[in-house]
Amino acid sequence: MPPVICIVGKSKSNKTMLMEALIKELKARGLKVGALKYHKHGDFEIDIEGKDTWKYAKAGADTVAISSPVKYAVIKKVKGEIDIDEICDKYFMDSDIVLADGYTQSDKPRIIVAESSEDIEIFRRGCEVLAVVRTGFGLDDVGGIVNRVLGDLNNFKMRGKGFDP
Amino acid sequence: MPPVICIVGKSKSNKTMLMEALIKELKARGLKVGALKYHKHGDFEIDIEGKDTWKYAKAGADTVAISSPVKYAVIKKVKGEIDIDEICDKYFMDSDIVLADGYTQSDKPRIIVAESSEDIEIFRRGCEVLAVVRTGFGLDDVGGIVNRVLGDLNNFKMRGKGFDP
Repeated sequence: MPPVICIVGKSKSNKTMLMEALIKELKARGLKVGALKYHKHGDFEIDIEGKDTWKYAKAGADTVAISSPVKYAVIKKVKGEIDIDEICDKYFMDSDIVLADGYTQSDKPRIIVAESSEDIEIFRRGCEVLAVVRTGFGLDDVGGIVNRVLGDLNNFKMRGKGFDP
Repeated sequence: MPPVICIVGKSKSNKTMLMEALIKELKARGLKVGALKYHKHGDFEIDIEGKDTWKYAKAGADTVAISSPVKYAVIKKVKGEIDIDEICDKYFMDSDIVLADGYTQSDKPRIIVAESSEDIEIFRRGCEVLAVVRTGFGLDDVGGIVNRVLGDLNNFKMRGKGFDP
């Protein structure tokens, strides 16, 4: 399984913006990047109303997929949340690294977006903290985080084991 | 792998409407139904502009997934079309039956939506034809097709082999 890094912090703390910046930076360094979002509040919209795939889901299909020469998508109804490891095992095996947004309860290594030391304590939860980023972070911060993460990735490869000891 | 049935016919021949009607009927009979669409013209839109997952794809992520307790979705960039069997193997193993829309080149058993005997010949392509449906089909047609398909499914189970001999 590729290494998974959780981006955690209060809502409206620019986690999404940090995810985007990290994805861009990791892509610029030639990595295959996966992005995973945890949506805790029941259902979410991902398809566009009126499209065929939307119609098939509406008609009751349990799994809907669409495939093209450049992209494919799968939407699956489930009864209960799928574990982050199971998702990564099934869908991210071809990624070099996965950034996970919203998995606050996970014990994976994490980057905390924080405004205060109190925030940091709330979101540390006994996990390995790769970086702490201010909500008003800049591009330098992003480059530094990626250096740190990639350093850990190299250690990870050399040691031949995952982030979690 | 679950049995896969292709719905083929000219464009604007109500294939989508037949897919929807078959999904509803198969669901009403208690089956887990998969729906697969082939999109031949390059890229397609499936996410909603401005959503976090959309932003992560836009930032360059090769794979984007979103998970909730009731549904999850995966969108993956690929270089070249994925084979229908590979998609079904990976994503539809928990379906009882898969209806595939747009896979005209596939050699799977098929239902042809046709207005003329000429249409039928064009879309037969040497494949097993489970049913031919007029473009102005009715609910009776749908019930009949499902009876036929489920009969074949039972044979399939009894014979212990797939539709394709």
